[in-house]
Amino acid sequence: MSKACLDAAVMTASEAAALIRSGRLRAEDLVRACLDRIEAREPVVGAWTWLDPDAALAAAREADRSAPRGALHGVPIGVKDIIDTCDMPTGLGFSPYADRRPSWDAACVAACRRAGAIVLGKTVTTEFAYFAAGKTRHPRNRLVTPGGSSSGSAAAVADGMVPLALGSQTAGSLIRPAAYCGVVGYKASHGEFSLAGIRPFAESLDSLGILARSLEDVTLMRQVLLGRCQPAVAPVDGTAPPRLALCRTPHWGNMEAAAREAVHDAVARLRAAGASIDTVELPAALAGAEDAQYAVMAHEAWRNYPFEYERYPVQTSAAFRALCEAGESVSPAAYRAALARIGEARAAFARQFAGYQAWLVPSALGEAPLAEDGTGDPIMSRLWTALHAPCVALPHGSGPRGLPLGIQLVAPKGGDAPLLDVSAWAARYLVPG
Amino acid sequence: MSKACLDAAVMTASEAAALIRSGRLRAEDLVRACLDRIEAREPVVGAWTWLDPDAALAAAREADRSAPRGALHGVPIGVKDIIDTCDMPTGLGFSPYADRRPSWDAACVAACRRAGAIVLGKTVTTEFAYFAAGKTRHPRNRLVTPGGSSSGSAAAVADGMVPLALGSQTAGSLIRPAAYCGVVGYKASHGEFSLAGIRPFAESLDSLGILARSLEDVTLMRQVLLGRCQPAVAPVDGTAPPRLALCRTPHWGNMEAAAREAVHDAVARLRAAGASIDTVELPAALAGAEDAQYAVMAHEAWRNYPFEYERYPVQTSAAFRALCEAGESVSPAAYRAALARIGEARAAFARQFAGYQAWLVPSALGEAPLAEDGTGDPIMSRLWTALHAPCVALPHGSGPRGLPLGIQLVAPKGGDAPLLDVSAWAARYLVPG
Repeated sequence: MSKACLDAAVMTASEAAALIRSGRLRAEDLVRACLDRIEAREPVVGAWTWLDPDAALAAAREADRSAPRGALHGVPIGVKDIIDTCDMPTGLGFSPYADRRPSWDAACVAACRRAGAIVLGKTVTTEFAYFAAGKTRHPRNRLVTPGGSSSGSAAAVADGMVPLALGSQTAGSLIRPAAYCGVVGYKASHGEFSLAGIRPFAESLDSLGILARSLEDVTLMRQVLLGRCQPAVAPVDGTAPPRLALCRTPHWGNMEAAAREAVHDAVARLRAAGASIDTVELPAALAGAEDAQYAVMAHEAWRNYPFEYERYPVQTSAAFRALCEAGESVSPAAYRAALARIGEARAAFARQFAGYQAWLVPSALGEAPLAEDGTGDPIMSRLWTALHAPCVALPHGSGPRGLPLGIQLVAPKGGDAPLLDVSAWAARYLVPG
Repeated sequence: MSKACLDAAVMTASEAAALIRSGRLRAEDLVRACLDRIEAREPVVGAWTWLDPDAALAAAREADRSAPRGALHGVPIGVKDIIDTCDMPTGLGFSPYADRRPSWDAACVAACRRAGAIVLGKTVTTEFAYFAAGKTRHPRNRLVTPGGSSSGSAAAVADGMVPLALGSQTAGSLIRPAAYCGVVGYKASHGEFSLAGIRPFAESLDSLGILARSLEDVTLMRQVLLGRCQPAVAPVDGTAPPRLALCRTPHWGNMEAAAREAVHDAVARLRAAGASIDTVELPAALAGAEDAQYAVMAHEAWRNYPFEYERYPVQTSAAFRALCEAGESVSPAAYRAALARIGEARAAFARQFAGYQAWLVPSALGEAPLAEDGTGDPIMSRLWTALHAPCVALPHGSGPRGLPLGIQLVAPKGGDAPLLDVSAWAARYLVPG
């Protein structure tokens, strides 16, 4: 037991799944180790909004008794609390919905459970996955935010509470907390996975994703979410180092010096490992898509949330209400124009990208900021979310306050599998700090 | 009271709203008239899955006491039972969910209520808005289907139970029941309205729409759903008859003779009214989009419904399970290819359409078939749904069994407002049978 307890904090889902499958690890011991870790750390980290230890242990014992159901058999996962679960409340980070009980599992949860995963509990989200923060704090520093909106999922994986968690992103809600917490983050292409059972915030942007400890785990869960179990396409290996491009983006000057250095150091290491890395400028057509992202997000949030806006004038946050009001001022014509602008940017990115396997871009402006200042700035993700791009955050280095830094790899919509392969290659040469 | 009772069965929502606003009609009397009609006819038609007469009357009295809230003040509406309501069950036409109680109103319901509408009740949908029929029968013939999946909404509007109702379409779920029941049907462009609070069936296709007694009512509710109250753009009037195109589609030969005659008679009447009407062939690029529509629908339904497929092997219908199984056999690559094919067809349609104000196409293969044979064939809608096109069904004529026939007007995605204007022009010259 104590051995499993120690291992659980660093064990990957792939390792755990293999050990369970081979009979060398009991799912019950793994779940118990996760629960022990949570018991010890949750008062400080606050990653969970719902936990039912007895139910999780019962599910683990059931997994230990039965033949392997699928690729995640016996593996505990965390589920962001905007994602419906049939047996746990789904509160969307909004207190009037704290006791909300969906009739169903979201499609992504059902897919994970069908593959044998054990839903350990629900992880803290900001209100409706927008900005108003929940209780979660950074595992390394109680005064610091883990980022948002996938706050609990990122913190739980980073803190050794659970090896894998589901998150989502509409602006920078997955890549930012992954970067802040120093875990691997994967935001899928828009439309890559089913969002059934997840209340839309801004449907033209909302994307599902994964917080994990390794790229192998991301690919494992991705196959489960796709309902497929075939192996991924052949990974990029050392004999064929990839062709990459570094794009500093127009926000480079606003980054903390240590964060810029981490990007440059990562680039140097990948070059040393054999990658060809050009430096590219962001095409003008792309830069304009950031403002369009905001217009689309605001307008869709406004039209998606009239019920809560009217019914809960006190309980909804000022940030949410301000966004809805901004969205109302976006006319239908301006909304359509913003969508069209993003569509053109998407095509321009695909053209510019041709010949590369990934673009390297910053994942955040710097270390995670103080929680009293909010959940951090999504500016390094807005554009790629608008482009429907698959995005991977990889940890690399740390900053002056001892908090994680890293880089982000992006590709055009639909290029998820090869992006994950090149990310796995890159991760070998990076050093999480 | 008896006067209101007589009028309610034919009164449009626009007329009712104006009468209520001017104090000449009480919302309570209108709602009572609708309830009286329902009480008399519901045992035969079966349009409703949930009614709470006392609550509706209380809401009407509240409306009569208060200042007008918006464009639908005091007007009763029907809501398809896949659309969440905070105060009525939302069962998705699926018996295990019959008592499901959402925490919220879907965004479209909240928008209608904000404009003063009274949700009279929930209307029958097929299972998950797919094929397995509910209890509703055609108002003119108990042995005949009203069409599906928006069965109850179409039948309720046709039968004088309520002037306006919300429906939706993924293949032919709104235009077909509108055509069968002889009411005005409007399926909006994909993405035109918020679908928040509506469980997705196939998100690349799902579209919201309206069943109504007039184009004026459609436009009224459309403005409410857009959260806007500005008047529509200047309508096409008699001094500028529109330029239209008749597209018989490749399914023309499969239509009932009377349905073909109804289309030709409509064309003749619109020509006589001054419209210029060319005959156009369906471009080859478009015809292929029908198969792609099926592949996308099946794949997305499969990935959206793993929970129900696994949890309810007995309660889910054979048709639904067969669709999910077909969807599983569509590989991710084939799915992406189908989406791409539809995208190309969408662009081809926009090019071919240039210079026209609407294409005239059939709305159904013929009269509504017998209920024992299902809810009818969506074939006349599949393509336009895939193209994300706004579609309007207008009743015109009737067939040998005394059931309604009609035509459909379509335009490229985003052209909803001008399509509704030209439809209003056309409706003046058509004769519902």
